[in-house]
Amino acid sequence: MNIAFIGLGNMGSAMARNLVKAGHTLTVYNRSRARADEFKALGARVASTPGEAADGVEVAITMLADDHALESVVFGKGNLLDSLPPNAIHVSMSTISVALSRRLTAAHAERKQHYVSAPVFGRPEAAVAAKLFIVAAGPAAQIEHCRPLFDAMGQKTFVAGDDASGANLMKLAGNFLITAVIEGLAESFALVRKAGLDANLFHEILTNSLFNAPIYKTYGALINSQKFEPAGFKLPLGLKDNRLLLAAAEENAVAMPMASLIRDRFLAALGQGMGELDWSAISKLSAKDAGL
Amino acid sequence: MNIAFIGLGNMGSAMARNLVKAGHTLTVYNRSRARADEFKALGARVASTPGEAADGVEVAITMLADDHALESVVFGKGNLLDSLPPNAIHVSMSTISVALSRRLTAAHAERKQHYVSAPVFGRPEAAVAAKLFIVAAGPAAQIEHCRPLFDAMGQKTFVAGDDASGANLMKLAGNFLITAVIEGLAESFALVRKAGLDANLFHEILTNSLFNAPIYKTYGALINSQKFEPAGFKLPLGLKDNRLLLAAAEENAVAMPMASLIRDRFLAALGQGMGELDWSAISKLSAKDAGL
Amino acid sequence: MNIAFIGLGNMGSAMARNLVKAGHTLTVYNRSRARADEFKALGARVASTPGEAADGVEVAITMLADDHALESVVFGKGNLLDSLPPNAIHVSMSTISVALSRRLTAAHAERKQHYVSAPVFGRPEAAVAAKLFIVAAGPAAQIEHCRPLFDAMGQKTFVAGDDASGANLMKLAGNFLITAVIEGLAESFALVRKAGLDANLFHEILTNSLFNAPIYKTYGALINSQKFEPAGFKLPLGLKDNRLLLAAAEENAVAMPMASLIRDRFLAALGQGMGELDWSAISKLSAKDAGL
Amino acid sequence: MNIAFIGLGNMGSAMARNLVKAGHTLTVYNRSRARADEFKALGARVASTPGEAADGVEVAITMLADDHALESVVFGKGNLLDSLPPNAIHVSMSTISVALSRRLTAAHAERKQHYVSAPVFGRPEAAVAAKLFIVAAGPAAQIEHCRPLFDAMGQKTFVAGDDASGANLMKLAGNFLITAVIEGLAESFALVRKAGLDANLFHEILTNSLFNAPIYKTYGALINSQKFEPAGFKLPLGLKDNRLLLAAAEENAVAMPMASLIRDRFLAALGQGMGELDWSAISKLSAKDAGL
Repeated sequence: MNIAFIGLGNMGSAMARNLVKAGHTLTVYNRSRARADEFKALGARVASTPGEAADGVEVAITMLADDHALESVVFGKGNLLDSLPPNAIHVSMSTISVALSRRLTAAHAERKQHYVSAPVFGRPEAAVAAKLFIVAAGPAAQIEHCRPLFDAMGQKTFVAGDDASGANLMKLAGNFLITAVIEGLAESFALVRKAGLDANLFHEILTNSLFNAPIYKTYGALINSQKFEPAGFKLPLGLKDNRLLLAAAEENAVAMPMASLIRDRFLAALGQGMGELDWSAISKLSAKDAGL
Repeated sequence: MNIAFIGLGNMGSAMARNLVKAGHTLTVYNRSRARADEFKALGARVASTPGEAADGVEVAITMLADDHALESVVFGKGNLLDSLPPNAIHVSMSTISVALSRRLTAAHAERKQHYVSAPVFGRPEAAVAAKLFIVAAGPAAQIEHCRPLFDAMGQKTFVAGDDASGANLMKLAGNFLITAVIEGLAESFALVRKAGLDANLFHEILTNSLFNAPIYKTYGALINSQKFEPAGFKLPLGLKDNRLLLAAAEENAVAMPMASLIRDRFLAALGQGMGELDWSAISKLSAKDAGL
Repeated sequence: MNIAFIGLGNMGSAMARNLVKAGHTLTVYNRSRARADEFKALGARVASTPGEAADGVEVAITMLADDHALESVVFGKGNLLDSLPPNAIHVSMSTISVALSRRLTAAHAERKQHYVSAPVFGRPEAAVAAKLFIVAAGPAAQIEHCRPLFDAMGQKTFVAGDDASGANLMKLAGNFLITAVIEGLAESFALVRKAGLDANLFHEILTNSLFNAPIYKTYGALINSQKFEPAGFKLPLGLKDNRLLLAAAEENAVAMPMASLIRDRFLAALGQGMGELDWSAISKLSAKDAGL
Repeated sequence: MNIAFIGLGNMGSAMARNLVKAGHTLTVYNRSRARADEFKALGARVASTPGEAADGVEVAITMLADDHALESVVFGKGNLLDSLPPNAIHVSMSTISVALSRRLTAAHAERKQHYVSAPVFGRPEAAVAAKLFIVAAGPAAQIEHCRPLFDAMGQKTFVAGDDASGANLMKLAGNFLITAVIEGLAESFALVRKAGLDANLFHEILTNSLFNAPIYKTYGALINSQKFEPAGFKLPLGLKDNRLLLAAAEENAVAMPMASLIRDRFLAALGQGMGELDWSAISKLSAKDAGL
C-alpha cells in the first residue's frame, strides 16, 4: 500500500520499519528531519510537511507524542487534512484524548476522508518485534482495509466498535491499569523489602502464580532492578495519559480514586526531579517513603 | 502420612478431601461438627477437639478463618499445642497476621515441635481442583517433608525462606495485589460503561493482551456479570486481610496509599450492607458513584 | 466613580447594589438582560454588550461564573477589551484560572489598560451584607485607586502582591481549604452519628473550642441540617474551582492528594445526580457510605 | 479536694500544677519517679504505685500516653482499680481508644466506683495556661462534682452525654480534624510557595478572614516556620490517635478516606525518620514532594 507515516519517535520509527519490511511504500515525515532521513536508506520518500507526505496516499498513519503534536500535524501549517485524498484513511495510532479523536472524526468526515483510531499497547521493544497490541475503532470497512498494516506492526488487533474515540478511551483505561500494577507492585515490594524479605523471590512467586502476565513480569523486574534509565516510556508521558483519562472521567462524571492516586504519584515524581525516568520510577516514591 | 486437619470451611474441606484422595490418613476437626462428620464416609476419624485431632500425628494442618479462630485452636481449651507430639509439624495454611505467625513459631519451638506457614492463593474452585498456589516458609527440612501434602492440594509450592512469618506477609501482599486488580477493573469498567462502550469487549481486549493472567479473567468476569453471590471469598474476610496487611505496614513504617484506598472501599461496602457478598463487590461502589 | 459592572448573578448583583449604595455611577451588563433591567430602578444604565458597558469608564468590574464566560466578555463579540479606555482598570473578581489571569494581564498591558485580580471569599449572604473578603493583586497604585470600591463591597481587602495571577492562585487554594473543612466535617459527623452520638453537640464543641471560625460554623450547620437547596454555591462550581486548582498544581508539579480526594467526591456527587445542590452536599457521600 | 494525679508528662504536670494552685490536695504518681518528686516542693505527696496514689481519694485523674500505659496503671501491678474507694471517681483525661473507655466503665461499675472520660484539646502551652478545652462524658452528677477541677485546668468544659466512651470518640474525631487542617495547609502552602508566592502572606489572609481560628494560626505558623522541634505533640502520638480513630471507624463500618490519607502521611514521615518531630511535620512531605 501507498502509505504516509508521520511521527518517527521510538515507537513510530519501529512501526514504520515493520511496514517497509512488509513491502509497503512509505513516505515519512518527522518534525526533526534527521530521524526521517534515516528512512531513505530503506527506500522511503521523505516529505517536508505532513501535507506533502499525505498527498496521494491510501492511508496516512500518525504516531505522535500528544494531542498538541497531532493537532499541529492535522490542522497546522502544511497540514495533512488539506492534502489527504478523499476516501483515504487517516489511522491515528497515538495515545490522544477522546475529545481530539471526536474532532478528527468530524473533520475528516467533512472532507469525505475516513478516520480510524488505532492506539497500541506495548513498549518500544514490542514495537521493534512487531508484537504490539492494536485497538482499532472506526468504520468497519476501513479497519479491514488496514488490517494488513496492523498485522505488519502488531501481534493482535482488536476491533472496538465504530466510534473511533472509543478506542482512545480504552487505550487510556488500559494505560491506567498498567499504572495500577506499577503502584501495587511498588507498595508491596516496599513492604516486603522493609520487612527484610526478598522482593525478587516475591516477584517470582507472583508471576508464577496468579499474576503470570507480561505486565507483572516487565514492571516487577524494572522496579526491583531500579533501572529507570533509559526510559522506555517517560514519566511525563505517563502523566499526560493519566490527565487524558481523568479528563474523560470528568466528562462522564466518573470518580476514579485510584487514578487520582496515580496522578499524585506522577506529580510528586516530577516535583522530585524524575522527569527523565521511565514512568515506573513512581515506585521510587514508595521506597523513599519507607526509608529504603 | 498420619495427618490432623483442622478447619473444614469452603477451602479447608476441599483441601482435606484432596489429601484423602492422595492416600493420607486424616483425623479432622471442625468447630461445627456436621461439616466434620461428612468426612467419616471418606474414612477419616472425627475428633471432638483440636487436641484430640493432633494427638499422635506427624503433621497437623490448620485452615481457619482468622487469627482469632487459629488462636483458639492452638492455645484454647482442648488445644493443639499441648497434644501435638514433639518433632511433629504444625502447618498453618490460613491467612493470618505476621504477628501471630511469629508467636506460633516461638510457642512450637518451646515444645520442640515444628512450625511451617503455608498460606495459599486460590478461590474455592481452585482448592477443589487441587490447583492452589502454596507459599511455604519455615524450616527447610520440614517443608520438604510436607511437600507430598502440598502437591496433593496445590499446583505449585514456593519456598519463601526460613522465617515462617515471611510467607504470611507475602500472602497478605499478594491479596492486596488482587484487590488492586479488582479496584482498577472496577474504576475502568465504570468509565467504559458510562461512556457507552462495551465493558465485556474491553475485558476481552485486556485479557488477550497485556493482562492475560487468571486474576484479570476471574475478576473481570465477576465484575461485568455483577454476580457477587454466592461469595467465593466474603467481603469481611477481604477487609480482615487488608487490616492484617496494614498492621504489618504500620509495624514496618511503610505507607501504602493504595491499600488504604481499598480499606475504605471495604468499609463503604460494609456500611452499605454488602457484608454477604464476594469481596469483588467493592466494584459496585465505582458503578454506583458513576450513577450506573 | 464611573464604573462598568459585568455579571449580575447571585454574587455580582449583590456587589453591584452595594456600589450603587456607596454613590458610584454604574453601567451594568448581564448576559440575560432581565437581571440587568432590575438595576434601572436603582439609577444604573444598562448596556447591551460588555463593550458598551466599558466605554468611557474608569473601572470595569467583572464577576462571572468561569473562565469561559470571562473570556467571552473580554475577547468575544462586543467585547470589553476593545472599548475600555487607556489607563482604565479592569478589576476581575471572578474565580478564574491562573492561566487566564496571566493572559488578561498581558492583553490589557498591550492596550495601556490596567488589570487587577480581586477574587472574593464569601457566600451570597456575605455579598449582600458587604462582608466579603477581597484578595487583590496587580499594580499597587491601581489597587489603591479601587480601594473605595472594595470597601463598599467587602469587610476587608488583602493586597497579595503585584502579580495579578497570584490572587487567583490564593483564591483557589483558599477554596480548597474550605472543601477540606467540608470533607473533614462530613467524615467525622458520619462517624459520630453512626456511633450513636449527637453530631450537633459535636459541632457545638468544635466551634466553641479550637475550630471557632465562620467556616466551621457555616458548613457544620449545613451538613447537620442536610439542607443543600437552594444552593449557596453549586456543586459544579466547586468542581470547577477544584479543577483550576489542580491545573495550577500540575503546572507547578505539586502533588495535592487531599485536593484529589475532593475532586473524586465532587465527581461521585455529580455522578449520583447532585448537580443542583450546594457543594457541601459532598457530605452526603460519607453519610451514604456509612449506611446512614 | 483530695486527688490522685497519675501521669506527669508535658500535659499532666502542667494540669497537676494548676490543681495545686487551685488549692487541691494532690498525691501524684509517675512511672519515672524524678518527675513526681518535683511536686514535693509544691506540697504534693508522691506515691510509689498508682494504687498507693488512689488510696482514699475522692477523685483519681489519669493523664497518660496511650491505652497501654493506662491499662497498666488501672489493671497492672499495684493498680488503681483495687485501691480506689467505692463512690470515688476515676477521671480519665488521656486520649485513649473507645474500646478501653468502655472496658473502664464496666470495671469501675463492678467495684461501685465511678468512671468519667474527660479528654482535652490543647497543646502543652494551653495546659500551662489552664486554657484547655475539656470534653467530659459519663454520669452527670460525677461530672458536676469534678467541675471545679476542670475549671482549674481548662477554659471550658463540654458535657458530651452519659456514655463515657462518647467523649473519647469525639476527642479522636476532633484530633482528626486538626490533622485535616495540617494536611490542607501543608498542600496549599507547598503550592503557593512553588508558584513563587509568599506563604506567610497567604497564611495571614486565611487567618484574618474565613479561617480565623486558633488551629489555623498555630499550625500555619508552625508549618511556615518549619520549626518542628521540640515537639509539642510528637508524630507517633498523632499516628496513635489516628489509629484509634480508624479502629472506631472500622468498628462502625464508616469509611474515612481523608483519615486514611493522614495515616499514610504519618507512616511516610516515620519511614523517613521524623519520629521525634511534632506531628505537623507531616507538612514536610508535601514540600519535599514538590521539590521545595
